[in-house]
Amino acid sequence: MKILVTGFDPFGGETKNPALEVVKKLPDGIEGASIIKLEIPTVFGKSAGVMKEAIRKENPNYVLSIGQAGGRYRLTPERVAINLDDARIPDNEGNQPIDMQIQPDGENAYFSQLPLKAMVKAMKEAGVPASISNSAGTFVCNHIMYQTLYLTHSEYPNVKAGFIHIPFLPEQVTERPGTASMSLNDMVKGVIATIKAIIAYDGKEDLKTIGGETH
Amino acid sequence: MKILVTGFDPFGGETKNPALEVVKKLPDGIEGASIIKLEIPTVFGKSAGVMKEAIRKENPNYVLSIGQAGGRYRLTPERVAINLDDARIPDNEGNQPIDMQIQPDGENAYFSQLPLKAMVKAMKEAGVPASISNSAGTFVCNHIMYQTLYLTHSEYPNVKAGFIHIPFLPEQVTERPGTASMSLNDMVKGVIATIKAIIAYDGKEDLKTIGGETH
Amino acid sequence: MKILVTGFDPFGGETKNPALEVVKKLPDGIEGASIIKLEIPTVFGKSAGVMKEAIRKENPNYVLSIGQAGGRYRLTPERVAINLDDARIPDNEGNQPIDMQIQPDGENAYFSQLPLKAMVKAMKEAGVPASISNSAGTFVCNHIMYQTLYLTHSEYPNVKAGFIHIPFLPEQVTERPGTASMSLNDMVKGVIATIKAIIAYDGKEDLKTIGGETH
Amino acid sequence: MKILVTGFDPFGGETKNPALEVVKKLPDGIEGASIIKLEIPTVFGKSAGVMKEAIRKENPNYVLSIGQAGGRYRLTPERVAINLDDARIPDNEGNQPIDMQIQPDGENAYFSQLPLKAMVKAMKEAGVPASISNSAGTFVCNHIMYQTLYLTHSEYPNVKAGFIHIPFLPEQVTERPGTASMSLNDMVKGVIATIKAIIAYDGKEDLKTIGGETH
Repeated sequence: MKILVTGFDPFGGETKNPALEVVKKLPDGIEGASIIKLEIPTVFGKSAGVMKEAIRKENPNYVLSIGQAGGRYRLTPERVAINLDDARIPDNEGNQPIDMQIQPDGENAYFSQLPLKAMVKAMKEAGVPASISNSAGTFVCNHIMYQTLYLTHSEYPNVKAGFIHIPFLPEQVTERPGTASMSLNDMVKGVIATIKAIIAYDGKEDLKTIGGETH
Repeated sequence: MKILVTGFDPFGGETKNPALEVVKKLPDGIEGASIIKLEIPTVFGKSAGVMKEAIRKENPNYVLSIGQAGGRYRLTPERVAINLDDARIPDNEGNQPIDMQIQPDGENAYFSQLPLKAMVKAMKEAGVPASISNSAGTFVCNHIMYQTLYLTHSEYPNVKAGFIHIPFLPEQVTERPGTASMSLNDMVKGVIATIKAIIAYDGKEDLKTIGGETH
Repeated sequence: MKILVTGFDPFGGETKNPALEVVKKLPDGIEGASIIKLEIPTVFGKSAGVMKEAIRKENPNYVLSIGQAGGRYRLTPERVAINLDDARIPDNEGNQPIDMQIQPDGENAYFSQLPLKAMVKAMKEAGVPASISNSAGTFVCNHIMYQTLYLTHSEYPNVKAGFIHIPFLPEQVTERPGTASMSLNDMVKGVIATIKAIIAYDGKEDLKTIGGETH
Repeated sequence: MKILVTGFDPFGGETKNPALEVVKKLPDGIEGASIIKLEIPTVFGKSAGVMKEAIRKENPNYVLSIGQAGGRYRLTPERVAINLDDARIPDNEGNQPIDMQIQPDGENAYFSQLPLKAMVKAMKEAGVPASISNSAGTFVCNHIMYQTLYLTHSEYPNVKAGFIHIPFLPEQVTERPGTASMSLNDMVKGVIATIKAIIAYDGKEDLKTIGGETH
């Protein structure tokens, strides 16, 4: 089995992106699966091009994209990506689309193809706080999740894809009062647990456990 | 013009639902539009039946549904409803669906048909904190938003629909430390401002202003 | 009975201070007690001079000072004032003392002389979220609370004094995501309930109810 | 130099107390100073007896007590301890004092005798989020800080004492949504940085840097 794991470069004035730091720290193999690591630019459009080329070249079984969600408390696998770019800040090349459709012939939204409940359970059992998120926002993270799922639905039916958002690193919040963070080690531990769950649930249905939100 | 405004009954052990309190306090007419008020049960499935019957009977131009989002700080028009029920708690008749599709032939998600950016601008100008939310959760609020939009897309193309989540009332948080609330008067003021924006933008495109989220 | 109620002028770039807005809205009499209203400058030292002159002139039975605590969720009577100025931002005349003692011959701290538990109970019964705070910070709010209690302990033994912090107004947080607020009406309702509790507990011991914090 | 570092046992239904876990992980010597480690029961009164006996026996230069502040985001050295027990929950032997003075002949409050600003700077430079807290609460943490400072002021003038509150561990918040945590490694790294700052500032004045709070 081959799993493509991607992380964005730093954005929004940060010098590090925890997503990329996590990707760098992953082993090259987990439970027999090859881990292919890819850096992706935090740029609308261009990020999707880099992703498409990597999927074409690597033909992975799974794509797990990782992005920074500054302010979150936990590792949060995303449930759904929506067909909309609405940037609160410019991306790394200055693009700031407002309420733009991503793919004219795409679905309004795509659901993650990963076993979300099993991933959350595995991360918690590893001692790492985790829960499902029902919105990946409307910036480049949602964009790449949507674009990747558009690809797996339109061109690569044998590839399954999904996204996980991760908190700031501790050193990113020393001047941000009231903002949660998570150590790099715990993030890596959590992402490895998630990858193990993906492997264990390959070809199976996800767990049926409580994990929704009232709002 | 006719606008159907709905509010849920109390759930989750609460004795009041601010959504219903707001609906009761609205005037019967706003800027010449008739305001039709409807209470909806916090029950999967049944809530959609009540909504469908009201749309059939009233044939409104717009449906604005209101729901409680305990813990939020602001009035938050919802961007999108997803084709999924995943209940964290039982509804008012004990149903607790886990990862169930709502409509087998529905879209994965429907976008709100209301002018979200204009609504947020109008609420802020009225002095009421507001912003767009990109997830209505996976409980009955998302359910009714999805079901209503499914109806407007499948059977009632002349009706436009959307949803707004509102915070707890102050009296709901006296024993909930660290939980935001908003006064009933401010919520009513905000919802009236939202309805005026819906009327003002009838037949027009929404504002193109910044209002997305990075995650 | 005579109660002096004080509110600070706006600071930190704000155009309003909810404390002053509340003071202006109070009635001139509550349960037979006269309410004397006073605006105080958000300035170290000078604020204490204004307070001292008002106490000398009015000879009140109680002094209740009110200050803005932007970000708090509730009305929070303060438990204690400490003998220390340590300003995070400059005051309204540009002073920014760092770790300075307020009164060389003062106590390290003075406890509020108001019936805190009874005040919290009265506010909650009025439907207004409230709890005791154990720190008034190290800016002008703590300064005036400390200076006033220094005065009541050193020169005015017949006067009792205390402080209550209040949240932002809704219009102050329209551009501050994730920040709680409270309506002016609810704040006024809460402060009136607090004043009634002060009057009712005059000459009596405070309630013995749970109201501490683990940290 | 000899530094006594204390940590409480678990309380409030937890199976671990991060304070005790940190103490166990500290080295026996830091920059030439001996680190003496002590477990303290989370019990009013009894905790002070254990502390007093250890100070008598060890005659340390410094006492640094560590306690859990569940929900905080950072390592937070405490500025001040107040002469008051007001328990929100029972301690580990069922005591729940309400508004009780700790020492009839003690000061209303004692300020920390540690170089707080230097400690915060050192922790941040180590990449660990930190800031001064102006309240240690009214439970056993404030109790032991007060009791220790009462001792250093009344019986042990050559000993200097202070307290630092630390967040939950990640494994303590897997079922606590919206609650921050910090890894044990980062906490240990931060506490070692704090101890180095205590040693470096021995006999010197604390830094004069901004570090107060407006409320």
